[in-house]
Amino acid sequence: MNRLTLALDVMGGDIGPRITIPASLKVLEQDPTLSLLLFGDSQQIQSELDILFKQYPANLRDRLEIHHCSRVIANDQSFTDALRHSKGTSMRLAIEAVQKGHAQGCVSAGNTGALMGLAKVILQPLKGIQRPALISLLPMIEGGNSVMLDLGANLECSAENLYQFALMGAIFAENRLNLVFPRVALLNIGVEEIKGHKSIRDASELLAKDSALNYVGFIEGNYLLNGKADVIVSDGFAGNVALKSLEGAATNVIALLKGKSRNHLLKPLFAYVMKALFKDSYQRLKSINPDQYNGASLIGLTAVVVKSHGSANVDAFANAIKDAAFQARQQIPQKILDGLSKY
Amino acid sequence: MNRLTLALDVMGGDIGPRITIPASLKVLEQDPTLSLLLFGDSQQIQSELDILFKQYPANLRDRLEIHHCSRVIANDQSFTDALRHSKGTSMRLAIEAVQKGHAQGCVSAGNTGALMGLAKVILQPLKGIQRPALISLLPMIEGGNSVMLDLGANLECSAENLYQFALMGAIFAENRLNLVFPRVALLNIGVEEIKGHKSIRDASELLAKDSALNYVGFIEGNYLLNGKADVIVSDGFAGNVALKSLEGAATNVIALLKGKSRNHLLKPLFAYVMKALFKDSYQRLKSINPDQYNGASLIGLTAVVVKSHGSANVDAFANAIKDAAFQARQQIPQKILDGLSKY
Repeated sequence: MNRLTLALDVMGGDIGPRITIPASLKVLEQDPTLSLLLFGDSQQIQSELDILFKQYPANLRDRLEIHHCSRVIANDQSFTDALRHSKGTSMRLAIEAVQKGHAQGCVSAGNTGALMGLAKVILQPLKGIQRPALISLLPMIEGGNSVMLDLGANLECSAENLYQFALMGAIFAENRLNLVFPRVALLNIGVEEIKGHKSIRDASELLAKDSALNYVGFIEGNYLLNGKADVIVSDGFAGNVALKSLEGAATNVIALLKGKSRNHLLKPLFAYVMKALFKDSYQRLKSINPDQYNGASLIGLTAVVVKSHGSANVDAFANAIKDAAFQARQQIPQKILDGLSKY
Repeated sequence: MNRLTLALDVMGGDIGPRITIPASLKVLEQDPTLSLLLFGDSQQIQSELDILFKQYPANLRDRLEIHHCSRVIANDQSFTDALRHSKGTSMRLAIEAVQKGHAQGCVSAGNTGALMGLAKVILQPLKGIQRPALISLLPMIEGGNSVMLDLGANLECSAENLYQFALMGAIFAENRLNLVFPRVALLNIGVEEIKGHKSIRDASELLAKDSALNYVGFIEGNYLLNGKADVIVSDGFAGNVALKSLEGAATNVIALLKGKSRNHLLKPLFAYVMKALFKDSYQRLKSINPDQYNGASLIGLTAVVVKSHGSANVDAFANAIKDAAFQARQQIPQKILDGLSKY
């Protein structure tokens, strides 16, 4: 694998360095050609490292650079307030490191609105892209993944915006899921041509006309997990609502099943039967869980930006770092730029 | 219970009389003060009745009236086309029976767009209501229900529309769920004040100012099943997407669990453990399934209109009839009218 440097905002998320620093060392150990720039409170970072280096080889230290900053964007800070007072914060400095070429991508579990806003301003959209979009993998119930965008970066979208999301999503799916001619669908409230907002119907016409894209029509919320499309396109409001609804249902179901199995006399029997019958199902259920699928990406920018869930645990934040590394090595931004001119 | 007559479009749905007629007899047997007007193809209705009266008491026949009509609105017919050619169809005649006072409510499993359109034109919105809305029960994972609206009648909504949905939803929840001062929330993509469309933020201000309503703020998609609100208010597009996403996740999970248990040597053991450990969970899972929660209602009109799922089975269509009977006996339309002037 190519040498690669990523910039991390280690202060973001509900917990901060106690999650992001162990995750960083975990990934550094697994990926010997990766280097990380850590932006955050050097004292907190150092005290985490002091503990962790009891279990990790000392030479990992060579691929870590600590960049102290005392300022942080709060999770609940409003978008405009965060942007106005972003100077010197861990999030902004991590993004600026990418802009200056010190790193090839960045990861943060912080304030989503601020991350999108700062990344857009500092890293700039690719030439020809009207609106960057938030994209994420969506696990299918029968196995495999789709990608879905936009998940909240753009609340109101024109037909042309949706069309560009479809293009970007198709290129992302080709690379990230290793697909040829991925099937593209538009999220709607019915499958008939006359359904939905005018922008969606117009986008459908644009997509149907473009033979370079494998457009398969509208998809409804109840089929999102059924592998009917590889790329699901939506405005950011409906996409966010759909993804969170799916996550909520999956998380609740897992909690129900787990809750019932605890402290029960039949627990060993349960464990046995669960393993025998539900192993695959359970794994697939878990894969709809946000913990497992961490990291939405902001695409359409000149560099890779991955947003981790604020509530990510160590494994989840590690997955977000790995995802950013994969995208940077695959040169997804460059491929989107090339793709735009090809389509 | 009061005497009550309902008008049924027995031709609607994916299957028609083979579902709707057995469901009708089932409800008539359980509800001795209910009468039904059946609108549809008399030959098909009669042949179903001939079979069914081998198992049902003959005197149920006295509370059934067959109204023959040869025309039907197709499930895939476009909204405008359906309205233009609705004369003499089973759906239109059922709604007209309500308008003429021959019945106090109607039920159809047919084309949702056509049902909403015809009901609005023929039955008229209540005085002061700008937009009727589609409302449904939503089962909570820990037990109990919420109500959610709008589910697809109104794709774009102003703040004032959303405010009226909240009023109607609260009155519906008070009566249907027997609640005092139900908690009202607006579906949004975050809980901060600055999130979401302007119409949602403005509706939030209107609701917060109204002390007659128990407004609790924004709710995100991942908390829809967690009992945080009794009334969930949304525009029809996002509401439809959210509900279908929840249904899709639940249906898939049930299919996964069922699929894995079939034709397996451990099946008897599975059945035993499932019963012992998951009885409640399984029931609650199933209750998120559209089969169990059948019947969305169009509220804000002068009479009760219940829309059954097109794929409803006999029990599900029977539930839709019972739901219509309950709402008509509770005089929900009158209560909404009274409520509008009170708030």
